[in-house]
Amino acid sequence: MGKVSPLAPGSFPGLLTIDGVRMATAAAGIRYRNRQDVLVMLFDKGTTAAGVFTRSKCPSAAVDWCREVLASGKARALMVNSGNANAFTGKKGKAATKLSGQLLAKAAGCKPGDIYLCSTGVIGEPLPAEKFSGVVDELVANARPDGWEMAARAIMTTDTFPKGATAVVDLGGVPVRINGIAKGAGMIAPDMATMLSFVATDAPLDAPVLQAMLSAGVKDTFNAITIDSDTSTSDTLLFFATGKAKGAPRISDPADPRLKAFRTALEGVLAQLSQLVVRDGEGARKLVEINVTGATSKKSARRIAMSIANSPLVKTAIAGEDANWGRIVAAVGKAGEPADRDRLAIFFGDIRVAHEGERDPAYSEEATSAYMKNPEIAITVDIGLGKGRDRVWTCDLTKEYVEINGDYRS
Amino acid sequence: MGKVSPLAPGSFPGLLTIDGVRMATAAAGIRYRNRQDVLVMLFDKGTTAAGVFTRSKCPSAAVDWCREVLASGKARALMVNSGNANAFTGKKGKAATKLSGQLLAKAAGCKPGDIYLCSTGVIGEPLPAEKFSGVVDELVANARPDGWEMAARAIMTTDTFPKGATAVVDLGGVPVRINGIAKGAGMIAPDMATMLSFVATDAPLDAPVLQAMLSAGVKDTFNAITIDSDTSTSDTLLFFATGKAKGAPRISDPADPRLKAFRTALEGVLAQLSQLVVRDGEGARKLVEINVTGATSKKSARRIAMSIANSPLVKTAIAGEDANWGRIVAAVGKAGEPADRDRLAIFFGDIRVAHEGERDPAYSEEATSAYMKNPEIAITVDIGLGKGRDRVWTCDLTKEYVEINGDYRS
Repeated sequence: MGKVSPLAPGSFPGLLTIDGVRMATAAAGIRYRNRQDVLVMLFDKGTTAAGVFTRSKCPSAAVDWCREVLASGKARALMVNSGNANAFTGKKGKAATKLSGQLLAKAAGCKPGDIYLCSTGVIGEPLPAEKFSGVVDELVANARPDGWEMAARAIMTTDTFPKGATAVVDLGGVPVRINGIAKGAGMIAPDMATMLSFVATDAPLDAPVLQAMLSAGVKDTFNAITIDSDTSTSDTLLFFATGKAKGAPRISDPADPRLKAFRTALEGVLAQLSQLVVRDGEGARKLVEINVTGATSKKSARRIAMSIANSPLVKTAIAGEDANWGRIVAAVGKAGEPADRDRLAIFFGDIRVAHEGERDPAYSEEATSAYMKNPEIAITVDIGLGKGRDRVWTCDLTKEYVEINGDYRS
Repeated sequence: MGKVSPLAPGSFPGLLTIDGVRMATAAAGIRYRNRQDVLVMLFDKGTTAAGVFTRSKCPSAAVDWCREVLASGKARALMVNSGNANAFTGKKGKAATKLSGQLLAKAAGCKPGDIYLCSTGVIGEPLPAEKFSGVVDELVANARPDGWEMAARAIMTTDTFPKGATAVVDLGGVPVRINGIAKGAGMIAPDMATMLSFVATDAPLDAPVLQAMLSAGVKDTFNAITIDSDTSTSDTLLFFATGKAKGAPRISDPADPRLKAFRTALEGVLAQLSQLVVRDGEGARKLVEINVTGATSKKSARRIAMSIANSPLVKTAIAGEDANWGRIVAAVGKAGEPADRDRLAIFFGDIRVAHEGERDPAYSEEATSAYMKNPEIAITVDIGLGKGRDRVWTCDLTKEYVEINGDYRS
C-alpha cells in the first residue's frame, strides 16, 4: 500500500445510499493483519442480479460459484474477501465456497443459493473459509446503508486508492440511483489477480433487463481497458437492483424505451469505474486514451486499438514521454487487421505527427514533446480505410511495474 | 552498445567459408559515426534464394522490395544497412530502395532485380540512399569469402554481440556447409525495429526446395521466439544457395529423401540463431524455454506457450527469480485454447509445483527458489487433455527493458 497513484482523483465521490442495500466490513485475518478484509452486502428481498465474469479458461472457485448462483437472477447477499483469490485451489477451493455460502446464509437468514462470493488475492493458496465463522454474525448485525467508501477500501489488495462512481437518473419520471465500486486490475500485487466491481441500483429492473444492460455496458468500458494484457482468473462484475425506488416503474423488457437514460447513466458509471482501475494500474504515471478511426469495422478498430494499448514498446515510450509514432505503426501492422501503411495518419493530442504513411512535414517535435509531459495522453490513429472506430484506455509501462511484479522477494 | 548480455555465448563460432559467397562492410555514415554500417554479400551466378518476411500489415520499403525480387528465386547480391529501417517512409522509401538497387547493380555488374535490400534502424526517417554511392565500388572490390563475423557486426544496431551459427552436413554423399548470421529482435534500440537473418549454403538446391525448407524451418525456430510480442515492420530472413559444393547432387524436388540430414542441419542453424536473438533480448538476464504438453493440438500448444511467453506478469516474476505458477495458470486461462484447470500440471525444471489444478503437496519452495537463480529456466505445462505439444523461447522482463525503451530521451 505504498504511495497513492499520481493519477488518483482528489477524493472518493459522494455516494448516496441505495434503498435496499446495507453493508459492513470486518477483519477476518485471511492474509492481511490489522485491516478490514471482508465485505458483506445485504440486499432486500426481491433484488435482481446480473453479472459478467472473466473469460479465462481457468477461473477461480468463486467465479464458478457466482456463475451457478446467477442462474436464478436473484440476490440476497454478497461476500468479498481480499488477500486470497481462491483460484487454482482444486477441490479445496470448491469446499471453501460451499462453507462460505453456508456460514453467511445462516447469519443472514437466506439460502446459500442467494449469495454471491468473490475472492481476490494470492492464487493457489487454500482459502481458510472457516475464519468467516468468527465475523459473519457481526457483519450482518452491523450492516448499514452508508458504507460505500469503507466497502471500496475493504476489497483493495495493493490498490492505492478506493474506487467509486455514482449517478442519479430518471426512470419513468422517477429519479433512481446507481452506485458502483471497483478494485484494481493488473494483478496489482505479487501473486495476486483480480478485478472486481460491484454496482447497485434502487431501480425496479427484472434480471434479464439488468443482464442485457450490463453485458452491453461493459463492451466499451471494462472490456475496453488494459493494464498489461494479463486477464485474471477472477474478474467479476456484479450488478444488483433492489427495486426500492418509490414510484419507479418495474421494467421487464430490455427493449423498453424508458431505459434510455438509465442505460446511458449506467454506462457512465461503468466508464468511470473502469478508468479508475486504469488510473491505479501498476506503476502507472500516465492515463492513455487510444482512438482508432477509419478502420473497416468497430471490431477491427478495437483490435488495432488493443494491439497499440498492449504494445510494451508503445507503453515504455509513453513512460519516457516520447511521441514514438514508429512503434504505433508497428503495433498497427502486427494487429492482423486491414491497414494500408500509406494511408495511416497518427495524432498525439491534436498534433498530427504522421500523414499518408510518412512523417507529417508540418510536425513540430517541440510541441509534441511538450504534449507528452501531460499526465493524460490521447493518441488517435486514422486507418483511412472505412468508418469503423473505437476507443480504449491503458496506462504507461514503467520500471515500477517491473519492480512491483518482479522484485518483491528480494 | 552498452554491456554485453549476460546470456551471450563465449565467442563467435568458427564459420567456414561458403564457396560462391563473398562479403565486405563499409562505413556509409547513414546514422552511426565511426562504425561499419553497410554489409554487401555477393553471390556467384546460379545462386538460388528463399525468404520469409514480417507478417506486419505495415512492412518496410525494403521488405516490399525483397518480396518482389524473390519471385525470380535468384540472387546475385545482398545489401544491408543499419541505422535506418526505411520503414513508414512513403514514396521516399520506395525511391530509396530503387536508388540503392541501381547503385549496387552498377558496381556489382548485375541487375537491380537480382539484389536483395534490408534496412534496420529508425522508423519514419527517410533513408539517404545516395550515401551508398560513395561505398558500393569499394564494397564490391573488397569482397572476400571469410568475413562472416565482420558481417554479423555490421548489421547490429544496439545488439550487444554478433550472432552466427554453422553446420556441415552430408548431401548425397558430399559434405555441404550452412552458415547463418542474425541481428537482434525486440526493437532493441529506441525507435528501431528489425530482426534480420541471412543464411547461405554451398548446396545445389533449386529455389522451390530452398523456400520449402526455409518456410518449414522457421516454424519451430524464428517463429517460436518472442522478446516482447512486438512484431517488427522489417523482419527478414533470407536463405541463399550457391550450388558450389563440388560433387553434391542438384536437388529440384522439396520431397527428395536426400534432403533429410540437410533439413535437420538447417533447422539446427535456425534454432541456434533464433536463440541467440533471445539471448540478446532487451535487458534480458534469463533465457526461458516454455514447453507445453498435453494440449489438444500442436497449434493449441503453441498458442498457450506464446500466451505464457508474452505475459508481462510471468516475465517479471522470472526476472524476480520467483516460481510464480499462479501467473502461469492465468496465462494458460487467457490463451482462449481448450484447458481444464483441474488437470493442469506445472513444472519449473524438474520440479512439479502444481498438479491436478492445485499446489503439489510435495513441492519444495526452497528447491524451486534455488532453481530460479539459474540463467536458463525451463517451464513445462501439461494441459492434460491430448497429445499436442510445442516449445517456445523467450526472456525475462527487467527494469532495463523499460529503461532501454523509455528513458532514452532523458
